[in-house]
Amino acid sequence: MTRPVGVALLGAGTVGTGVLRILERHRERIAARAGGPLEVRRILVRSLDRHRPEVPASARLTTDSQAALDDPGVDLVVEVMGGEEPAQSLIRAALERGKHVVTANKSVLARAGGELLERYPQRLYFEASVAGGIPIIKPLQECLIANRLERVLGIVNGTTNYVLTRMDRAGLTFEQALAEAQAAGYAEADPTYDVDGLDAAHKLVILAMLAFEAPFGLDDVHVEGIGRVHPTDLAYAREFGYTVKLLAVARRHDAVELRVHPALVPRDHPLASVEGVTNAVFVEGDAVGPLMFYGAGAGSLPTASSVVADMVEAARRIRATGQEPNGRIFRDDRPPIRPPSEMVSRFYLRFRVVDRPGVLAEIAGAFGRHRVSIESMIQKGRGSEPVDLVFVTHPAREADLRLALDQIRGLDSVHDLASCMRVERGQEDA
Amino acid sequence: MTRPVGVALLGAGTVGTGVLRILERHRERIAARAGGPLEVRRILVRSLDRHRPEVPASARLTTDSQAALDDPGVDLVVEVMGGEEPAQSLIRAALERGKHVVTANKSVLARAGGELLERYPQRLYFEASVAGGIPIIKPLQECLIANRLERVLGIVNGTTNYVLTRMDRAGLTFEQALAEAQAAGYAEADPTYDVDGLDAAHKLVILAMLAFEAPFGLDDVHVEGIGRVHPTDLAYAREFGYTVKLLAVARRHDAVELRVHPALVPRDHPLASVEGVTNAVFVEGDAVGPLMFYGAGAGSLPTASSVVADMVEAARRIRATGQEPNGRIFRDDRPPIRPPSEMVSRFYLRFRVVDRPGVLAEIAGAFGRHRVSIESMIQKGRGSEPVDLVFVTHPAREADLRLALDQIRGLDSVHDLASCMRVERGQEDA
Repeated sequence: MTRPVGVALLGAGTVGTGVLRILERHRERIAARAGGPLEVRRILVRSLDRHRPEVPASARLTTDSQAALDDPGVDLVVEVMGGEEPAQSLIRAALERGKHVVTANKSVLARAGGELLERYPQRLYFEASVAGGIPIIKPLQECLIANRLERVLGIVNGTTNYVLTRMDRAGLTFEQALAEAQAAGYAEADPTYDVDGLDAAHKLVILAMLAFEAPFGLDDVHVEGIGRVHPTDLAYAREFGYTVKLLAVARRHDAVELRVHPALVPRDHPLASVEGVTNAVFVEGDAVGPLMFYGAGAGSLPTASSVVADMVEAARRIRATGQEPNGRIFRDDRPPIRPPSEMVSRFYLRFRVVDRPGVLAEIAGAFGRHRVSIESMIQKGRGSEPVDLVFVTHPAREADLRLALDQIRGLDSVHDLASCMRVERGQEDA
Repeated sequence: MTRPVGVALLGAGTVGTGVLRILERHRERIAARAGGPLEVRRILVRSLDRHRPEVPASARLTTDSQAALDDPGVDLVVEVMGGEEPAQSLIRAALERGKHVVTANKSVLARAGGELLERYPQRLYFEASVAGGIPIIKPLQECLIANRLERVLGIVNGTTNYVLTRMDRAGLTFEQALAEAQAAGYAEADPTYDVDGLDAAHKLVILAMLAFEAPFGLDDVHVEGIGRVHPTDLAYAREFGYTVKLLAVARRHDAVELRVHPALVPRDHPLASVEGVTNAVFVEGDAVGPLMFYGAGAGSLPTASSVVADMVEAARRIRATGQEPNGRIFRDDRPPIRPPSEMVSRFYLRFRVVDRPGVLAEIAGAFGRHRVSIESMIQKGRGSEPVDLVFVTHPAREADLRLALDQIRGLDSVHDLASCMRVERGQEDA
């Protein structure tokens, strides 16, 4: 009989428990595909006291991470504890000991992935780190290798997509929709990490590294959250033929743009129909054209589905005699990052203005002086003060837009700029 | 320098030309990932006369398939000629000679795939055989290994999806929409193979083999085409909250159901928004839940994108020293196939009836006697003769439905059954 591949599972929370369940439920199929059984030998937990019905007889619980890594019978370390530390140190220690590592950890990948993937391209697996159960890492790394990828657009945070969906569908305010998400268990008590776009930014860094074959970091990402999105804007967006999504956007031309922000997406775009906590990643390649991957972005079993798929691949590699050829992930030349001021987008803008003749002319004049041209305009609510004046621009450089907005905000007839969001359309807007 | 992996390309038509273009355009990246260069040494063509600007200097054109296969410098055979023969014989000959084979050939896979995958699980690659550029084969084989897959629903034929989209959007008849598709180059002069569902049936066989880990054949598939779909039915479907798609359906309970047919799909289902020639595959797994893969299902570069990805994987395997563990694709027990009469579905039914009181009671009585229960009903067009009487049933066994329909068609008040289509909803309808 083949010796089992020995596994140390670091973490037995939501995802870890899902991994143990799947390993038990599909034991035979997994062994058949992996070329022999997987045996969980060590499980790193915070406390030995809790009853854990899913722990298999083969596994020893431990609170000592070194003992888990030092076990010579452990070939494969599966990190599902989450968070920055001690996860990163443990992943490094395992890789340095020559073990294969499967991780679901977006924080570690976004912060140290560039270096780790450069050093250990064949022994680090991270399908579960982005978009939970959706296969996206392997498709980007392997299935789309024949493409230069031009653009990746992700709805990769379920909490914010749920909130925006409820605001759009039920006319809720941001605060109401967030409270509903918290009650339903889709948002944390402190929702900052999701709502401010940080979670999505981590995932974007990982997607961009694979799509553009270069190391990136969180500092390269321009991030805006959804806290300022108002139901009024969702209603105007609908009138213009759009819906609003928190998008993680990676584009490249001569330079790379990485940004996370609420964006207007055309209603007939495949991403527009991605609702609730569902995730989706939209990719454009020069050969394949547009592709979309859609599914559950979080949850115990969906995330564990990706973790276990990686474990099977790692086990196959561990069992292989001999060596695969090297598979460098990164190119030699890292493309430059485009600063936000140089990014070119269409913009949705809502001003609150005094309702009197001539206001539109003043605003249009300021746009024109800064080379921002207007695609469409809506004015509503005549008679009450102030009234909304809403614009969608043609593609404009952000620096130009900022200058125009500064001037417009100085106009006596303008109360304020109530909303400013990017519009994300087709590749032609590049 | 590493010796190149030698390639014989069988066929230089639409897909073959796309392959040559991508190999040239992304030469460096492909070599980096494949562990060394790929060199096309032989290209099998029908005629040596044509000018072929994309043929690289390394390649010799030949009309002699044996010469291509016998070249000892050829490690990898790429079959993109299409059709049943001689493709199948050449694929077999190459595999028997120990070469790796990449193919885009759905016919060969649907007819002989069961046997070929059993014998050569590690040397036969076929990502391009289903849904063109969409990565679906590798996700099913590798990324979803932690799942028992319950259901696969595919929109895998662009021609029929284009025709149905135009009928739905523009109110065209089937004939008008088909003529438009032919004019646009989306349908063949003889569209039978697409329109009758045969193309989709081939792809379904391939998807089902991977999803259910057992060999299937075309004889296992129940096939209906879209030739009888009427614009009236699309309008009624819309009233009931559905759209109509040609679906390739693979489900399993105790037995496996394989069927291709026009189906009513709920408007809020992710497949409902897949329009025009786009393809999509929707998968449900026990861990991951619902997933969808969406993109270009045909065309030179999208299909070549999948072919080249397979070529890179094959080249990596060819270059590897030593052996990977075996990866059996099929289980030992092949599940039984459920005959159409035993399949349970909701049905959409449109009768043309005499417009007089009591007709509904007669029809409802016949349904009730055969245990077919009605979920909803629409009656339109009062005053003209005949009038439409339209039903959507609750899940019913097809044999029961047939008995009820026989009885209903015998009623004096019923002109005919103008339409009968399945309704495909959630997993709960199993």
